[in-house]
Amino acid sequence: MATTTQSVAELCRRAKEASHELAPLPAEVKNAALEAIADALEARAAEIIEANAGDLEDGRNADLDAALLDRLALDEERIAAIATAVRDIAALPDPVGELLEERELYNGLELKKVRVPIGVIAIVYEARPNVTVDAAALAIKSGNAVVLRGSSMAQRSNAALAEITASAGEAAGLPEGSVVILPGGDRSDLLDLIQQDGLVDLVIPRGGEGLKKILKANATVPVIYAAAGNCHVYVDGSADVEMARRIAYNAKVQRPGVCNSAETLLVHRDIASKLIPEVFGDLHAAGVELLVDPAARAAAGDAADGLTDATDEDWDTEYLGLKMAVKVVDSLDEAIDHVNHHGSGHSEAIVTGDPDAGEAFTNRVDAACVYVNTSTRFTDGGEFGMGAEMGNSTQKLHARGPLGVRELTTFKYVVHGSGQVRE
Amino acid sequence: MATTTQSVAELCRRAKEASHELAPLPAEVKNAALEAIADALEARAAEIIEANAGDLEDGRNADLDAALLDRLALDEERIAAIATAVRDIAALPDPVGELLEERELYNGLELKKVRVPIGVIAIVYEARPNVTVDAAALAIKSGNAVVLRGSSMAQRSNAALAEITASAGEAAGLPEGSVVILPGGDRSDLLDLIQQDGLVDLVIPRGGEGLKKILKANATVPVIYAAAGNCHVYVDGSADVEMARRIAYNAKVQRPGVCNSAETLLVHRDIASKLIPEVFGDLHAAGVELLVDPAARAAAGDAADGLTDATDEDWDTEYLGLKMAVKVVDSLDEAIDHVNHHGSGHSEAIVTGDPDAGEAFTNRVDAACVYVNTSTRFTDGGEFGMGAEMGNSTQKLHARGPLGVRELTTFKYVVHGSGQVRE
Repeated sequence: MATTTQSVAELCRRAKEASHELAPLPAEVKNAALEAIADALEARAAEIIEANAGDLEDGRNADLDAALLDRLALDEERIAAIATAVRDIAALPDPVGELLEERELYNGLELKKVRVPIGVIAIVYEARPNVTVDAAALAIKSGNAVVLRGSSMAQRSNAALAEITASAGEAAGLPEGSVVILPGGDRSDLLDLIQQDGLVDLVIPRGGEGLKKILKANATVPVIYAAAGNCHVYVDGSADVEMARRIAYNAKVQRPGVCNSAETLLVHRDIASKLIPEVFGDLHAAGVELLVDPAARAAAGDAADGLTDATDEDWDTEYLGLKMAVKVVDSLDEAIDHVNHHGSGHSEAIVTGDPDAGEAFTNRVDAACVYVNTSTRFTDGGEFGMGAEMGNSTQKLHARGPLGVRELTTFKYVVHGSGQVRE
Repeated sequence: MATTTQSVAELCRRAKEASHELAPLPAEVKNAALEAIADALEARAAEIIEANAGDLEDGRNADLDAALLDRLALDEERIAAIATAVRDIAALPDPVGELLEERELYNGLELKKVRVPIGVIAIVYEARPNVTVDAAALAIKSGNAVVLRGSSMAQRSNAALAEITASAGEAAGLPEGSVVILPGGDRSDLLDLIQQDGLVDLVIPRGGEGLKKILKANATVPVIYAAAGNCHVYVDGSADVEMARRIAYNAKVQRPGVCNSAETLLVHRDIASKLIPEVFGDLHAAGVELLVDPAARAAAGDAADGLTDATDEDWDTEYLGLKMAVKVVDSLDEAIDHVNHHGSGHSEAIVTGDPDAGEAFTNRVDAACVYVNTSTRFTDGGEFGMGAEMGNSTQKLHARGPLGVRELTTFKYVVHGSGQVRE
């Protein structure tokens, strides 16, 4: 494996060279390498756990909170789950080589549009060591070399996981340099990485607005932001009240710390007095703090205790926790305008009994994933049947929504002739 | 039409608002608007020619060269050609609404992946007034609002063309703000434009390395570089000499000032002494200056007069004119490595009689368009059967090669349920 005593540019250059060898590798070689990686992770679990113990000790000394320490911790069972995820990725169809279009041109040229790897993909991620292996496996499956840049909090764990992944993969036939890791935690390394034009073909930053700002200001290589979600549930006047309660509750409460959970509930005036007391009761019981506009407060009835007045800022806030903003709207149009103005283009839902309202919402709301009568929480590569994901794109170019192995590819035109020249 | 006394942000906000109305417009409305635009351009040709006369006079006073003045000039015939191009774009299939994928998920959710417009596309372009109309027509057809930022040299012509396009389009049913224009020439306008996060969804810069550098350093909105091409023709040892001569000549000479013309000729050692004297003779006769490595000079025989020694810099230079670098290589591998190291990922060709060599080249060369036994000059939306193009992408994300109406779209996932929530 490439070691971290090399410069960022040197590491990226080795990944670039590896990418040229990786791109044409047959599916069998990539899959065998992934199986070998899964086996090696299980066989060398003790080494991983020992490295992880060092990170955990540093984390406790730095007073990391319990949730962060839990995300950082590895044991036999979690390592087995990581290995299983690698085997699941091996079992996916190979996206490389897929024929996307084929036609004969007017002059007899035979044009094919063929799916190919992107080249070198860099991923910048939070203190979750499993991402080290997930990202490497998704990259290998899609024929890309990967440059890993994790958090300094998981430095030892990531180094052990990357070393095992790289060495097992290379022993099974991957080119040297297919998986490289930066030490992480060094800001200058990050800045170097995102300016490796010609070597890094794509950076995927996973993380909050702070990381996004650094990349916006400094990245010169292409970026797909796997970024925050300010998601809405809009309950139309024609909605089934019980269905709306269930969906609003699920979208907020089932896992509030993730990007596809809902932050704002919009309720049509016609249904507000029926729906809002019920939903507020549910959400209060789950410990959700509610930030409401005057009309929502007026509709709350017995459930008005403990409500907070919403400010303009609330409509633009991703709480990532047990807080929800609530607003009453006069029309479907007002709901759509609110979503398009305040949403982050991630996941948006309407609950409605009126198919025309559903169609207007899905046509006019500008987001990666638009839902009718179901929860925003389904935006996920696994749920969508795409296998594992590298993140969730909230930008429009290249890929929107879950980034699976197909989204980690591009295409090339391959044109065969018999001596044709342009007149 | 939006006027230029407004700030860049105000103009972009109006385009954004228009984009929400444009996205769901049926094909018939967009096509009728395009026909109305074509008619208006012809009906108001005199106004356009008068505005153009002002630009031409300024250009002559500023001693612009004849080629630039010719690109800038408009007359009845050229205006008719612009109108015809708009009608051709109207006749293309509507890309919006195309169903890309459809499946039922394990829980009964019905998932559709649907092609949708990107939103607001800004284009920054050189002093070619026809681009004003082409870009607007491609944007309208694909359901996008467009922000035009042309060259100050074509300021009056562009303003007239954009005003006619916007007013005819709006009279035929497009939302106000669908076509807006910045005055052009003001550097601060450009910097403002490329930082309109949330308003501009995509900037396409057409132009040279200088413009690219400005965007790399300053753009915070997504960019597709429609950039330079350092393209190669590689003649394999097994090539037909006559075919290789014809392709090398066409790739360099047929239109040397464009991005898909070849800059470097690579020749396998086995064929060098047969091919090089012939090709050099052809190229000398066309007035091409040749920059050669020692082996190419040695192989030139009678055609060695007037050759220049190539420097390392030549392998990385896009001449955009009648100059060509020539290098002899020992193997197909060396040719592929040279192309991947020095090429810009635009268009690359091999001439070969060996199908295995062709396959190795197309598999391993990392470029948008890879050709076997034909000229690099075919990289073009029209030639590829895609209709008109907004430029040629040399990046890997989103779209590679010609940017037609489909490449000006993205997709969204539309998911219908019956109350499903995530467990």
